[in-house]
Formats: sequence, structure tokens, C-alpha cells
Amino acid sequence: MNEHISSAYDRDLEALITLIMKMGGLVEDAILNAAQSLEKRDVELAEAVRNGDKAIDALEVEINDEAARVIALRAPVSKDLRSILTVLRLAASLERIGDYSKNIAKRTSVLADMQPINGADAALRRMAKEVQVMLKDTLDAYIRGDAELAEDVRQRDQEVDQMYNALFREFLTFMMEDPRHITACMHLHFMAKNVERMGDLTTNMAEQVIYLVTGEMPDEARPKSDKTAFIGEV
Amino acid sequence: MNEHISSAYDRDLEALITLIMKMGGLVEDAILNAAQSLEKRDVELAEAVRNGDKAIDALEVEINDEAARVIALRAPVSKDLRSILTVLRLAASLERIGDYSKNIAKRTSVLADMQPINGADAALRRMAKEVQVMLKDTLDAYIRGDAELAEDVRQRDQEVDQMYNALFREFLTFMMEDPRHITACMHLHFMAKNVERMGDLTTNMAEQVIYLVTGEMPDEARPKSDKTAFIGEV
Repeated sequence: MNEHISSAYDRDLEALITLIMKMGGLVEDAILNAAQSLEKRDVELAEAVRNGDKAIDALEVEINDEAARVIALRAPVSKDLRSILTVLRLAASLERIGDYSKNIAKRTSVLADMQPINGADAALRRMAKEVQVMLKDTLDAYIRGDAELAEDVRQRDQEVDQMYNALFREFLTFMMEDPRHITACMHLHFMAKNVERMGDLTTNMAEQVIYLVTGEMPDEARPKSDKTAFIGEV
Repeated sequence: MNEHISSAYDRDLEALITLIMKMGGLVEDAILNAAQSLEKRDVELAEAVRNGDKAIDALEVEINDEAARVIALRAPVSKDLRSILTVLRLAASLERIGDYSKNIAKRTSVLADMQPINGADAALRRMAKEVQVMLKDTLDAYIRGDAELAEDVRQRDQEVDQMYNALFREFLTFMMEDPRHITACMHLHFMAKNVERMGDLTTNMAEQVIYLVTGEMPDEARPKSDKTAFIGEV
């Protein structure tokens, strides 16, 4: 991406990008494992996701410290500075996606003792898989400086939103049909909302990549999003 | 806070802090107005909160740009650099709290057409008020470099969490008693969760202030938090 010859700054930036990719890999795993722990009622896997979040948090701290060191030492300007600030923003988003995965895993142990809700676990797993692929593509777009791929991720967020809206309506119906489903549905709804938020965060990351590559934020507001705020009736 | 004589850097930092305080004031208003719009069923006020979020977002962009300019121009190190990075983090948190307020206001217009749930609006308003005062104190602690006040904010987040946990149980009970309350309770629950998240974000800001003032993050993990993940029965 840089045209000038390799410098101390370039090596520092590469080290930071390596840390971002490592963090991204851990977060991708957390997303998939959280959804799988729900579907398989695997309380041990859920526990592993919850404990694994510490490593993700530690990587963010390491990235923040290292980025601050690079800014202080190399005094980067313009594009170079933007690269470092992008690293900080991507790390912050990854940390939050990791947190949402942990929150999902927390609820697995409660739901393990309840009657499964018809199809909800599989629907959540499909949503989570969609978000994980979006994240993978965002990280690929970042490494390759591929604004087109990042834009594609941005568009795909609508599918996640649609999946979520459909699930929200389904949960309402289930609860109305049988009040014994209410507690489980409240938890499942939380999980679905968390996955939807992970999609939003991944989209924010894709927008950061577009900004880094093109120098401009995507100007068309992407067609948002969670429509459930407007659902009064099912 | 700085012992050296006023420099170009100091003036830049002061300008940034002024922007943070302006942004913080807008966000405080957004929190209170969102809760009030629900309680009074005031759809116009809710609309004003939703539109007002644009000004909050614009301030974050301005702060980010200005901070990048200061880093590039002044090449700050150690404490000075930490001050600028803190500005970036506080602005990011404020933007997210603004978003949550907007999300709450969005649901007001739906709930305006539904039967009020006994006491829920007032409980949400009390939670929102608590968070707004926490935010106000965090901004005061930031301006005055008062780590003790920031630590006090951090402790108060537990009260918000307790209010939220109590509401969660109440909503479950309401829904089970009468399925006609389910849709309204789902929305109200979302709003309560949003307020709880605003409390978490404010607590993160308080921790940033402690880090800025003392050079160390609070080491005792604060007693967390949303316990509803573990509620299987009501």
C-alpha cells in the first residue's frame, strides 16, 4: 500500500496489522462458538467462549499501547497517521464484537435447561455465520486494501437485519401463543439482537476500511436496519 | 493540569475539551428527553431527540478530525498524547450513548399507541436520570482531573444495573400475566437495556478519566452487572 521504501514506521504498522488479524481470528471463533454452544446446548463450549474473551481484551490493550508508542516515536502524518488511527478503531470494534459473543455464550447455560424454541437456534446460528463471514471479508478487505469488498460487506448487513426482524416477529408470536415460552424467548431475543449489533459493528469496520483506502467515508447512508422499533402489531 | 507554560499544544487541547463538553451537554439532554418523551407520550419530543443525534455525530467527526490534526502538527508524547487519545475515546463513547438515546426515542412513537405498563415509564425515567447524573459527574471529573469523583461514578453503575435487573423481572411477570402486554414489554425491555448500556459506557468513560489522571486503569474489576443472563425463572 505504501510506495516509499520500507521504513521503521512500515515495520511498526505491519506489526500492528498482524495483531489486528490475530484479534480478528479470535473474534471470528468467538462468534461461531457462541452460536454453536447454543445450538448444541454445549455449556462447556459456552464457558470457553466466556473465558476466551480475556485474550481478546488483552490484545486490544496491547494494540492500544503499541499504537500510542508508534505515534509518539514516529510522529506519523496524513495517510500514515490515518492508518494508525484506523488500527485503533478496528481494535475497539473487535473488542465490542467479542463482548457480544461473550454475552451470547452467557445465556447458553440458562437456555440449556429450557425447552428449545422451534427453529430459533438454527436461525441464530445462520445469522452468526453470516456475520462471521462479513467479518472475515472485512479483515481481508483491510489487508488487501480492497474497498469494493468492504462495500460488499456493507450491503450484506441488510440481510442480517432482515433475519433479525423476522426472528423478532417470530419470538413475539411464540410468546403470545404460549406464555411458558416467554422467558426463553426473552433470552433468545437478546442473543438475536446481539448478533444484529455485531453485524452493525462489522459494517462500521468495513466503512473504516473504505475510508482508509479511498480517503472518503461512504456517503450514501446505508439503508438501515433494525425495523423492530416500528413493530406495533404482529 | 499542565505545569509547563501555555503552548500551542495546550490551546489545541483546550479547544478539543471544549468540543467534548459541548458534545456531552447534547448527550445529557438526549438521555433526559428520550426518557421524558416516553413518559409523556410526547412523539414530537421523541422526534427532536432522533433529529438531534445528527449534531452529536457531527461533533464526533469534528473532534476526530481536530485530534488527528493536533497529533500530526504537534507530535505530542507521553501524557500529552494520552490526553489526545482520551479525547478520541470519550467522543466515541458519547456518540454511542447518543445512539442509544435515539434508539429509545424511536420506540416512543410505537409505545404511544399502546396501553402503558404500570410504573414502567417512571422506572425508566429514574434509570435515565441516574445515568445522566453519572455522565455529568464524569464530565466534571474529566475537567477537574478528579479521579475520586470518577471512581464514585464507577461504583454507582451498580445501582443502574440493579434497577435494570428489577425491571427485567417485572416485564417477565407482566407478560406472563397478560399476553396482550408482550409487545409493549418487549419494547420497554429494549429501552431499559439501552439505558443499562448507557450506564456501562459512562462507566467506561469514568475509567478513562481515572486512567488519564492517575496513569493507571482501575484494577479491581467492578462488580458486574447485567445479571439477567442468569435468570431462568421469575
